[in-house]
Amino acid sequence: MFLTRTEYDRGVNTFSPEGRLFQVEYAIEAIKLGSTAIGIMTKEGVVLAVEKRITSPLLEPSSVEKIMEIDQHIGCAMSGLIADARTLVEHARVETQNHRFSYGEPMTVESTTQALCDLALRFGEGDEESMSRPFGVSLLIAGHDENGPSLYYTDPSGTFWQCNAKAIGSGSEGADSSLQEQYNKDLSLKEAETIALSILKQVMEEKVTPNNVDIAKVAPDYHLYTPSEVEAVLSRL
Amino acid sequence: MFLTRTEYDRGVNTFSPEGRLFQVEYAIEAIKLGSTAIGIMTKEGVVLAVEKRITSPLLEPSSVEKIMEIDQHIGCAMSGLIADARTLVEHARVETQNHRFSYGEPMTVESTTQALCDLALRFGEGDEESMSRPFGVSLLIAGHDENGPSLYYTDPSGTFWQCNAKAIGSGSEGADSSLQEQYNKDLSLKEAETIALSILKQVMEEKVTPNNVDIAKVAPDYHLYTPSEVEAVLSRL
Amino acid sequence: MFLTRTEYDRGVNTFSPEGRLFQVEYAIEAIKLGSTAIGIMTKEGVVLAVEKRITSPLLEPSSVEKIMEIDQHIGCAMSGLIADARTLVEHARVETQNHRFSYGEPMTVESTTQALCDLALRFGEGDEESMSRPFGVSLLIAGHDENGPSLYYTDPSGTFWQCNAKAIGSGSEGADSSLQEQYNKDLSLKEAETIALSILKQVMEEKVTPNNVDIAKVAPDYHLYTPSEVEAVLSRL
Amino acid sequence: MFLTRTEYDRGVNTFSPEGRLFQVEYAIEAIKLGSTAIGIMTKEGVVLAVEKRITSPLLEPSSVEKIMEIDQHIGCAMSGLIADARTLVEHARVETQNHRFSYGEPMTVESTTQALCDLALRFGEGDEESMSRPFGVSLLIAGHDENGPSLYYTDPSGTFWQCNAKAIGSGSEGADSSLQEQYNKDLSLKEAETIALSILKQVMEEKVTPNNVDIAKVAPDYHLYTPSEVEAVLSRL
Amino acid sequence: MFLTRTEYDRGVNTFSPEGRLFQVEYAIEAIKLGSTAIGIMTKEGVVLAVEKRITSPLLEPSSVEKIMEIDQHIGCAMSGLIADARTLVEHARVETQNHRFSYGEPMTVESTTQALCDLALRFGEGDEESMSRPFGVSLLIAGHDENGPSLYYTDPSGTFWQCNAKAIGSGSEGADSSLQEQYNKDLSLKEAETIALSILKQVMEEKVTPNNVDIAKVAPDYHLYTPSEVEAVLSRL
Amino acid sequence: MFLTRTEYDRGVNTFSPEGRLFQVEYAIEAIKLGSTAIGIMTKEGVVLAVEKRITSPLLEPSSVEKIMEIDQHIGCAMSGLIADARTLVEHARVETQNHRFSYGEPMTVESTTQALCDLALRFGEGDEESMSRPFGVSLLIAGHDENGPSLYYTDPSGTFWQCNAKAIGSGSEGADSSLQEQYNKDLSLKEAETIALSILKQVMEEKVTPNNVDIAKVAPDYHLYTPSEVEAVLSRL
Amino acid sequence: MFLTRTEYDRGVNTFSPEGRLFQVEYAIEAIKLGSTAIGIMTKEGVVLAVEKRITSPLLEPSSVEKIMEIDQHIGCAMSGLIADARTLVEHARVETQNHRFSYGEPMTVESTTQALCDLALRFGEGDEESMSRPFGVSLLIAGHDENGPSLYYTDPSGTFWQCNAKAIGSGSEGADSSLQEQYNKDLSLKEAETIALSILKQVMEEKVTPNNVDIAKVAPDYHLYTPSEVEAVLSRL
Repeated sequence: MFLTRTEYDRGVNTFSPEGRLFQVEYAIEAIKLGSTAIGIMTKEGVVLAVEKRITSPLLEPSSVEKIMEIDQHIGCAMSGLIADARTLVEHARVETQNHRFSYGEPMTVESTTQALCDLALRFGEGDEESMSRPFGVSLLIAGHDENGPSLYYTDPSGTFWQCNAKAIGSGSEGADSSLQEQYNKDLSLKEAETIALSILKQVMEEKVTPNNVDIAKVAPDYHLYTPSEVEAVLSRL
Repeated sequence: MFLTRTEYDRGVNTFSPEGRLFQVEYAIEAIKLGSTAIGIMTKEGVVLAVEKRITSPLLEPSSVEKIMEIDQHIGCAMSGLIADARTLVEHARVETQNHRFSYGEPMTVESTTQALCDLALRFGEGDEESMSRPFGVSLLIAGHDENGPSLYYTDPSGTFWQCNAKAIGSGSEGADSSLQEQYNKDLSLKEAETIALSILKQVMEEKVTPNNVDIAKVAPDYHLYTPSEVEAVLSRL
Repeated sequence: MFLTRTEYDRGVNTFSPEGRLFQVEYAIEAIKLGSTAIGIMTKEGVVLAVEKRITSPLLEPSSVEKIMEIDQHIGCAMSGLIADARTLVEHARVETQNHRFSYGEPMTVESTTQALCDLALRFGEGDEESMSRPFGVSLLIAGHDENGPSLYYTDPSGTFWQCNAKAIGSGSEGADSSLQEQYNKDLSLKEAETIALSILKQVMEEKVTPNNVDIAKVAPDYHLYTPSEVEAVLSRL
Repeated sequence: MFLTRTEYDRGVNTFSPEGRLFQVEYAIEAIKLGSTAIGIMTKEGVVLAVEKRITSPLLEPSSVEKIMEIDQHIGCAMSGLIADARTLVEHARVETQNHRFSYGEPMTVESTTQALCDLALRFGEGDEESMSRPFGVSLLIAGHDENGPSLYYTDPSGTFWQCNAKAIGSGSEGADSSLQEQYNKDLSLKEAETIALSILKQVMEEKVTPNNVDIAKVAPDYHLYTPSEVEAVLSRL
Repeated sequence: MFLTRTEYDRGVNTFSPEGRLFQVEYAIEAIKLGSTAIGIMTKEGVVLAVEKRITSPLLEPSSVEKIMEIDQHIGCAMSGLIADARTLVEHARVETQNHRFSYGEPMTVESTTQALCDLALRFGEGDEESMSRPFGVSLLIAGHDENGPSLYYTDPSGTFWQCNAKAIGSGSEGADSSLQEQYNKDLSLKEAETIALSILKQVMEEKVTPNNVDIAKVAPDYHLYTPSEVEAVLSRL
Repeated sequence: MFLTRTEYDRGVNTFSPEGRLFQVEYAIEAIKLGSTAIGIMTKEGVVLAVEKRITSPLLEPSSVEKIMEIDQHIGCAMSGLIADARTLVEHARVETQNHRFSYGEPMTVESTTQALCDLALRFGEGDEESMSRPFGVSLLIAGHDENGPSLYYTDPSGTFWQCNAKAIGSGSEGADSSLQEQYNKDLSLKEAETIALSILKQVMEEKVTPNNVDIAKVAPDYHLYTPSEVEAVLSRL
Repeated sequence: MFLTRTEYDRGVNTFSPEGRLFQVEYAIEAIKLGSTAIGIMTKEGVVLAVEKRITSPLLEPSSVEKIMEIDQHIGCAMSGLIADARTLVEHARVETQNHRFSYGEPMTVESTTQALCDLALRFGEGDEESMSRPFGVSLLIAGHDENGPSLYYTDPSGTFWQCNAKAIGSGSEGADSSLQEQYNKDLSLKEAETIALSILKQVMEEKVTPNNVDIAKVAPDYHLYTPSEVEAVLSRL
């Protein structure tokens, strides 16, 4: 009765007979090709850890940015198309700065996440900032505001969820299982660092070194770990 | 004489020979994939109850918002694409705030519903707020205004109806039958809470807990139940 | 020599080799799926009567609006896509209000009908108010102005005709025959009410009740009948 | 070597290998489906006569307008899509009013015709007044200016010709032959009326009555005949 | 290796693998369907002569304008789509008037021709004056400026050439041969008139009369011959 | 694995799987159909020589302009679509005039060439001056500025190169070989004239006459040779 | 289940079912057809070296610019479509000049790279500066700012990486291997020059001469080597 699914999957924003938006689903596939990123929320703050694929020894590891600061109190880890992520992060930075300027106080983590998702949802609309296709990136947004620490997860459809812990990217399936086993609400930030890195170690094909992972925390301010701080966590595994 | 229906169903806004708009019908299918939501109007006010699909124990249940406040006197439950719903709700919030500012009084529930449907109808038109495809979401809009409590139901075509009770989402067929059996105009708000939750319990695959359902009332103000208030209703089943 | 007609029917605004516009013809089909509406003009005023399809006992009958006021002296009954009709009616309301404001007198019924049809004709043009497809709705416009009472009929092509009596929607074929038999120019408004409802009764599958029909008159002001006024007409059948 | 003609006929404005514009040719077909209209120029003025298809006895004949006033000294008869004709006539009315306002004198008949054709030629250009397809209508434009009476004929391609007499619509072939036989430059207006109506009578399937024909003259002012004036012409046949 | 040519010929502005623009070539075909026009330059001035196809005895011959004045010192003959030609001529009239107004002197014939060709080249660009397809018309532009008399020929590609003599339209092939045989630089204007009309006579199917040809000269001002002036030339054949 | 190349060659600006832009390559083909043009740089200045195809003895040779002045110190020869070349040259004339006006000095030859190529590269972008397809023309740009004489060559992709000598058009392959054999940096301008014309003579099918070639030099000002100057060069062959 | 990949590769910005953007991947192929370029960072500054394909002895080697200055402290080498690269470089020049003007200090190398990539990412969006297809070019951006020397590599997707050494273009695979073998952080600028040229020599088909390579350094200012400086490096091989 219906043509096969492939007849509905090239219109950027077309429903299939079953009510599905295939271009968004394919963008979600792009993330499954990406490097793995993990976020864990604790009472003391949030930890983000990412795998960095260093394809050549001549690449400067610090230039492979998979964790970025959005504002003093918010950072995010990403998986998927890095150039798309940079556009979203840049948008969020402007929004949070404008908020500080207009209201004299930091933007909440949820509002920041909502602003990012609004932009992600608008693809195909033709206005100035939006893209002509879905953004091919997922983000783990870690922040600390008047409600304490929080962790959000966004996908290419412009939907977001608040999580206690979450993994994205090619190793997310295994990593999510491990997180569910090991997570509890009373983890210390230090324990969270160890769990995040031990799970990354499981899903990465290469040996973990301070060069091919990045760690950051928001507790309550954003801080990207130096190589020696990463080494310290590694030594605890 | 005519090609099969699949030849007419990818143009966003094209009539088939029988006068049907397939993209709208497919968007309606998207809602049948969604979680179940129920609304019941009583003389004392309106009750909304929704199923929340908590796909991971690490997801923060309160961040899966399927019931949202539009204004002090209006709330809505949703089923379908959540990011689409957020856009509609945000639009309605601006409209109701503007109304209060311009006229010094709350917007009626019907006008608010009409404003939402105007936006939903405009898909494919290319203007600033509209989408390039139908909104893939249905809403149950509960409110209380000078005419007392009221409940509206909207679909992706931009049409709306006023109802005494209504279910949407994957379990809506069974839930609607149960509502017709159990509804009468003299229900108390408390009885409506019990009926809504008992019907949700029937259509949900998982055991009902305060974590995977949300309840709200508008009587006359919008109020989202706390986990302990949900627990209290659950204990009455 | 020519491809079959189905090759010409998906371009929104493309002539077929015989000079036909198929998308407009398909929109006209959408009306044949709609509920039946009847209008009858008398010297005393115009009567409009519509079938309301109440698909669930929990639906509020008064929210299924198939007859709407445009201005104090003009009302309309509709068949087809209700959301499309609302857009047209809203446009007409603004036009008639602007006319009153600019000229200090009511807009004539013909000018109001022309304004509605101008908007309907503009589909596919891409300007702000127009649709990207034909409006899938027919209207019966009843009014009373300096020329006395009048009744107009519009279709999705943006064409309109003035009639003494007219039926639209799924039962229009039988209803039009009955109207031709029973209509004469000397009908009283009361007789017109009875004829309208007796014809609706013939074409409706369900038993007629005050819940599933609406009646309105423009004589000279628009008035939608209350359930008891409908009951009174029903009792005369 | 070339595909058949049907490969070139759906692009709104695409030349075929032989240099033809098929969508314009198909729009011309739309006129062959229309009712017949006749124009005859005499030294005393111009006569226009049209067939009106009254599909139902309940239709108000005077609302089927196939002859319209453009300005005090110009009128036109039409065949084809009436809603398209109304757009053209409305455009011409604005142009002639603007001319009177700017120059303090009436616009000539040829300039008015040229203005109509400019709009007709612009289809598919996307600017505000133009259509996204050819206008599916032909006009007979009768006027009287400083050069005396004149009659113009326009087609959907935006081309126009000045004629002594011309028929358009479904009966135009037979009517044009009759006009060539009976026309001479010394006809009186009264003789022209009789010829126009006698030819209409030949090509119409129904009996001619004051209800299903309209007659107008421009001599030197536009005047649409009353039913009794039409009756008077009919009685001379 | 390549698809046949028909795969490349419907994009308005698309090169084929051999570097050809087929839509322009097809527009040039449209001119081969048109009536024949001839231009001859002499030292005394330029003569233009055209065939007029009078399809009905009721058509006013003077309204079939195939020769038009652009400015006091420039006229043009055309073959192809007349409505397209009118747009180009109207554009040229505005340009030449603006030039006179801005510089206090007439525009040269070459600049006027260039302005026409600029517009012709811009088809498919979407700006205000340009068409969405090539202009389907060729022009012979005759003028007299500070450099003396000159004759230009334009085609739908927006290219132009200066000629001593040139024929366009359905009879152009034979007419061009005759012109090459009979043309010399010392022709008097009177001899040119005779040659132009005698060649038209050869290529026209009908007998030549003052009704079905037009003649104009630019020597140094534009002048369209009256019927008796045409008769005078005819009598010399 | 891939479709054949013809699947990728109609999108104006689409990469093929091998990273090629076929529409640009096809536009380059258009130039191979054009007449031959040759440029030679010497220390004394630059010589340009072109073949002119005079298709009829009635064509005015001087109106077939294949060499044009851009500014007092810059000229260009062209091959391909002449109307496209005129647009580019007109653009360059405005740019060089603006430069003189703004900076009080002539624009350098390289900057002028870059400005031309910027416009050529922008095809398909939809802004005001750009085309909806690649410009089907190559230019040889000869100039003399503060750096002395220079010769540039541009192609439809918007790329340019500086050359000592270069041929374009249908005879370019043979002409380029001859140039490589005969060119040396110490050529006098007079020798360059002779070489350019002798090579043109080899590649042209017709006998070379002052009527079917044009020669120009920029040394240091642009000068187009008169027929007698061309004759003088011809006599040296 | 899926169509082959070729069904997804012509939409400029469409995800395939596996989450890939084929047009971007094809643009990356365009670079594999380009000439080879190499960049090496040392503590003393950065060296860029490129192959220049001189297709004719008459081409002026210095006009084949594959290394360009962006600002006093930044230069870049390119491979792929040169006209695209010029657009990006011109954009970067404006950005860096604006930065100097607004902030009174040079733009950092990373910000400049980010600005280039923002433009590259925006393809297909329709705004003024962006292209309707991906930019078919990769850049090696060498600079020196407050953080010392740095080298960046960009690709058509708008992604960038910081490197110690990197090769792009047709010989990049072999060149990258050689770079990994020979690179160490303590290289002097002079050693880097020698390595860059020796690797170019390996991957180029022709003999290396000062005519077919270019070398530049940023140490700390941008400097393009003169032929004799290139000769000096060559003599050290």
